[in-house]
Amino acid sequence: MPKHLITFHPGEKRISVDEGENLLQAAMEAGIHINASCGGSATCGKCKIHLLQGTADSPKHPNISSQEYEQGIRLACLTSVHGDLEVEIPLESQVDRSVLQLKGDRTAQKYLLSPQDIYQLVQGWEVDPAVFKKYVLLDPPTPKDNRSDLTRLTHVLERQHGIGGISADFRVIMRLSQILRESDWKVTATLVLTRKGYKLINVEPGDTTQRNYSVVFDIGTTTIYGQILDLNGCVVVACPDGQCDGTSLFALAEASDYNGQIRYGEDVITRIIYSQRPGGLKTLQEVVVSTLNKILQELLDMSGIDRSLISHMVIAGNTTMTQLLLGLDPKYIREAPYVPTANFIPPVRAVHLGIHLADHVHTYIFPMVASYVGGDIVAGILGSGIFQRETLTLYMDIGTNGEIVLGNKDWLASVSCSAGPAFEGAGIKFGMRAARGAIEEVNINHRTYEPMILTIGRTKPIGICGSGLIDAVAALLETGMIDPNGKFRGALPTDRVRRGPDGYEYVLARKEETGIHEDIALTEIDIENLIRTKAAIYAGYKILLESVGLGFQDLQQVIIAGGFGRHIDLQKAIFIGLLPEIGIDKFIFVGNGSLLGTRLLSFSKNLLKEAERIALMTTNLELSDHPTFMNEFVAAMFLPHTDASAFPQVKDRLHRMKSGYLSEQVM
Amino acid sequence: MPKHLITFHPGEKRISVDEGENLLQAAMEAGIHINASCGGSATCGKCKIHLLQGTADSPKHPNISSQEYEQGIRLACLTSVHGDLEVEIPLESQVDRSVLQLKGDRTAQKYLLSPQDIYQLVQGWEVDPAVFKKYVLLDPPTPKDNRSDLTRLTHVLERQHGIGGISADFRVIMRLSQILRESDWKVTATLVLTRKGYKLINVEPGDTTQRNYSVVFDIGTTTIYGQILDLNGCVVVACPDGQCDGTSLFALAEASDYNGQIRYGEDVITRIIYSQRPGGLKTLQEVVVSTLNKILQELLDMSGIDRSLISHMVIAGNTTMTQLLLGLDPKYIREAPYVPTANFIPPVRAVHLGIHLADHVHTYIFPMVASYVGGDIVAGILGSGIFQRETLTLYMDIGTNGEIVLGNKDWLASVSCSAGPAFEGAGIKFGMRAARGAIEEVNINHRTYEPMILTIGRTKPIGICGSGLIDAVAALLETGMIDPNGKFRGALPTDRVRRGPDGYEYVLARKEETGIHEDIALTEIDIENLIRTKAAIYAGYKILLESVGLGFQDLQQVIIAGGFGRHIDLQKAIFIGLLPEIGIDKFIFVGNGSLLGTRLLSFSKNLLKEAERIALMTTNLELSDHPTFMNEFVAAMFLPHTDASAFPQVKDRLHRMKSGYLSEQVM
Repeated sequence: MPKHLITFHPGEKRISVDEGENLLQAAMEAGIHINASCGGSATCGKCKIHLLQGTADSPKHPNISSQEYEQGIRLACLTSVHGDLEVEIPLESQVDRSVLQLKGDRTAQKYLLSPQDIYQLVQGWEVDPAVFKKYVLLDPPTPKDNRSDLTRLTHVLERQHGIGGISADFRVIMRLSQILRESDWKVTATLVLTRKGYKLINVEPGDTTQRNYSVVFDIGTTTIYGQILDLNGCVVVACPDGQCDGTSLFALAEASDYNGQIRYGEDVITRIIYSQRPGGLKTLQEVVVSTLNKILQELLDMSGIDRSLISHMVIAGNTTMTQLLLGLDPKYIREAPYVPTANFIPPVRAVHLGIHLADHVHTYIFPMVASYVGGDIVAGILGSGIFQRETLTLYMDIGTNGEIVLGNKDWLASVSCSAGPAFEGAGIKFGMRAARGAIEEVNINHRTYEPMILTIGRTKPIGICGSGLIDAVAALLETGMIDPNGKFRGALPTDRVRRGPDGYEYVLARKEETGIHEDIALTEIDIENLIRTKAAIYAGYKILLESVGLGFQDLQQVIIAGGFGRHIDLQKAIFIGLLPEIGIDKFIFVGNGSLLGTRLLSFSKNLLKEAERIALMTTNLELSDHPTFMNEFVAAMFLPHTDASAFPQVKDRLHRMKSGYLSEQVM
Repeated sequence: MPKHLITFHPGEKRISVDEGENLLQAAMEAGIHINASCGGSATCGKCKIHLLQGTADSPKHPNISSQEYEQGIRLACLTSVHGDLEVEIPLESQVDRSVLQLKGDRTAQKYLLSPQDIYQLVQGWEVDPAVFKKYVLLDPPTPKDNRSDLTRLTHVLERQHGIGGISADFRVIMRLSQILRESDWKVTATLVLTRKGYKLINVEPGDTTQRNYSVVFDIGTTTIYGQILDLNGCVVVACPDGQCDGTSLFALAEASDYNGQIRYGEDVITRIIYSQRPGGLKTLQEVVVSTLNKILQELLDMSGIDRSLISHMVIAGNTTMTQLLLGLDPKYIREAPYVPTANFIPPVRAVHLGIHLADHVHTYIFPMVASYVGGDIVAGILGSGIFQRETLTLYMDIGTNGEIVLGNKDWLASVSCSAGPAFEGAGIKFGMRAARGAIEEVNINHRTYEPMILTIGRTKPIGICGSGLIDAVAALLETGMIDPNGKFRGALPTDRVRRGPDGYEYVLARKEETGIHEDIALTEIDIENLIRTKAAIYAGYKILLESVGLGFQDLQQVIIAGGFGRHIDLQKAIFIGLLPEIGIDKFIFVGNGSLLGTRLLSFSKNLLKEAERIALMTTNLELSDHPTFMNEFVAAMFLPHTDASAFPQVKDRLHRMKSGYLSEQVM
């Protein structure tokens, strides 16, 4: 894809962008503030720029007069870049420096690993799935050789493929004699390697070895992600040139949807409460299965793969989601001392759960650690390779709940933080999940206090999602509009800050610019909720480190997983004290770590015992009973933290900022 | 039980009998002929004896005048012995010597092992069932110890009972949390040892370890036998005096019934044919399950054991019966080259088959060798201990089909003889199974040619069963009424031999003495069918021996199994050439060897792998394809055999008999 060079004036900041890139977004990513409070939907008409030179596509707009348009005035949000550009930011929206000097590119994109890199996180695995197919040619029975059909088949599997000690599923035996004869003794056997050895689960006529697929699901409390995989993966046939860059391992299709259980409660606790109603458990079980079936259908439609060719299913979910899927009463997950029914679930047939797959498809359920550290986390640890490396790693999966794991190849410890779903919008007045219309990026001009926001889909804002929330609070803190307690600092020369029904609030977008026809504002209560959430997470990893006698300085790597992680701005998350202030190069984002783990497990049978080992070796700390948790939590209820020495760069920056503002305001 | 001494005059033959013994039966067992052609039902009135001295209970009868009664004349069939007796056999029914001098007691009873002896056939087993219960006290979860419920349970099973590597059935996991809490953390776990390790299949509140039962079934083509067993067997609690004589291992109850499939065909071939009709397989499956459920209900009623306390089921059947039970199409069992679907069947849940047992009960299906050497034979080999001994043993199970195994601990070979169900009455004009009213014992006076018959239940005869058939043919041969080809020797001074619709026949009972109001006769065609059957069996074991380069003289033991074996007269079976003429002390009868095997397997998990080893190590010979089978079969179509040198004693005896008869007839 061709790249174009944009030069912003004044300041001559140069950035390289892709063909067709939106100019407002490019400016924001470069840390160049252009007022824009409608999120880039061409409503507020404030993001005016002056196109000095170059090729760009930018239509007229009512807020731009014909005269202005002729002079080269455009709305940045309507401008797409088609060649090198020189752009002048007009005085009214110009800022003399970027809001956060520390950052260069949007960190989430910088530190989000490429798919190839992700597959290299885990070493020593190969495409050798636990569920595999073998084509065999049998000698038809003769008077001298009239072994039973099953014996004939297992013998040939042993002789031709070295697979011994096979046990057969009774359902295979039911159809075996007929299939062998109808196929003229040429069949494809599907086998699965379990803890107990090889099991023959299907026999098909002819050679179907090239058509062997699996589906994997990450069942989140909010969102369920599914993928369909080609289990032949990277084999010679699939890579005729003998090259394998890992891309053949990618999913053939990916789809996601909200977990249908959402309407019965936003988090695991409310789901468990609902499950205790008469028929509640059954309803929740059916609803999540219905979501899985819906996603499965999408995957089949997208990939064009026949349902009958799916041989395996792998599922990772938190403990509550797993128990609800299996119809296991989650009652005791909620009651102290928080006991799940089982951490290791035997393979369950997909049809038994109500999932529309062939009779022989077994479901591998990722093992769990504890009531609040589930199979999704074990899958994440597996997928990110922590369990293999010496490197002391902190693994954070911030979703509806926050789970954190610390360790390396020798030991693993976990905590779960009842962070609350603030990052998914709960407890935030205009909070919403990361969906179309959500404010996902926020900057605030430190002189005018005018916001520059971007929404997902560049439509009119209808709310604010997690990453927008972090950006907004970081910007309010940096501009000095709120103090480290998260309270607005009284009167400021802007009507953006005002008294609302819940105390002070900052207006991110005015009603005429929004999609909901009311002002979208961030209140002090919202900020307090965010602080509470980040404090719980901070306390979690702090205690985890302390429990093994370590500190932030000992961390060699921090892996951020989860859909949330993909969108946050690392620097801003550190700035508000959500993430520890350590070298930025120690952070990596793996995206959906759980789904990554399910995918790797589906591809490589070697990882079956590793998943089990991870679940067994992980020691879980119950924060609710931890003697210092409350102290740590309270100490973290400050931006970035009461102990500023833990965030020396943030402290320093805040100090410099404050001086700057004061001198300007004095002028 | 007190014993009484009976002295028969003339001849002063003395026998010891039990209190209450029937005098006619006692005489027959002593080889003393007393005419009786109504089978002991007091109809023919011919079995008159003279009671010289002693205590006996014997009512009056119309055929005995008052004068005769006062003189001490009684009907032997109505006389029960209550003290030492002296009995004179009146001239009209007296014989000067027993029909078969060789025999002493009824051999079947002599060589039928006692239950204690039977359990000693197999060495090195102990009461340690594969399905067992363990009572455990769990520590309730605490904040410091909130392992999952399943982990808690498996840990305590490992710590308290040394049972490691447990996998759990999903159905257990479903109920686990609730049961643990409702039982205050005191539960009984039911585990099963499979090829793949220990599996947790049930959890019950409280201590139920003393209530652990199994049911075992031998599914025959004709008859199904079932037993209910106490799996605690011979343990200290069951034998408070510390003594264990093995009797505690006996079944708590035994019941049997005809296999409901009988109405769809007498033998496996006709059943297979029926199974090929639309819905036929399903019908046959349901019908046999219905018989099993009926027997199960009887066993529960008899033993007073609650259905829910049955933890295990073990089934042995021939290959066709097994496939029909499992709903596996038996089509290819019947078609050359006779291939069964599978010899090893994974454990199947009883409810899956339609058997009314608890959800967690698994069915162990005895492994099979070949299409016509099934799990019943493997169970018989297991139960009779052949696989453990150096002794070269011939194991014969003559039922609807005849299966024969030869070998010892190092090797085993088998054949199946399409003997045909002559011994169960098929192909015999008045043939019937061994049921009430069947003629089971036959003697014929060599001078008067009058029969002495006994029926099962001492009722009027309604037909003749296998043992009666062997007796009758042996007697006809010995008295010289038939020649070694089985043909009647023309005119004899008796109206018992006559021309009937099927050629010559011998009238065993006249219509006024029978329960069917017609003469019961044995025809030349019946005799030919019997010869055919015995020839097939003889050819079977002859070829089996020859295939390993051995002969009759090498046999160290012959085990006769099957309900049939229990009733036959060993000497007479040898006399007609059904059994080989070897030392009589080499024969033992084990009764239902298959049921014995199921019982042992249910008691001892050590035998699980032995059963598998037996099935694997047994080499089956297909007689139908064997080059010398037809020769051997034809050569055996003679009484006892064309090669008389194989039966030297029989030959000698026949020679002596013939001389005697001739000299008498000449006189």
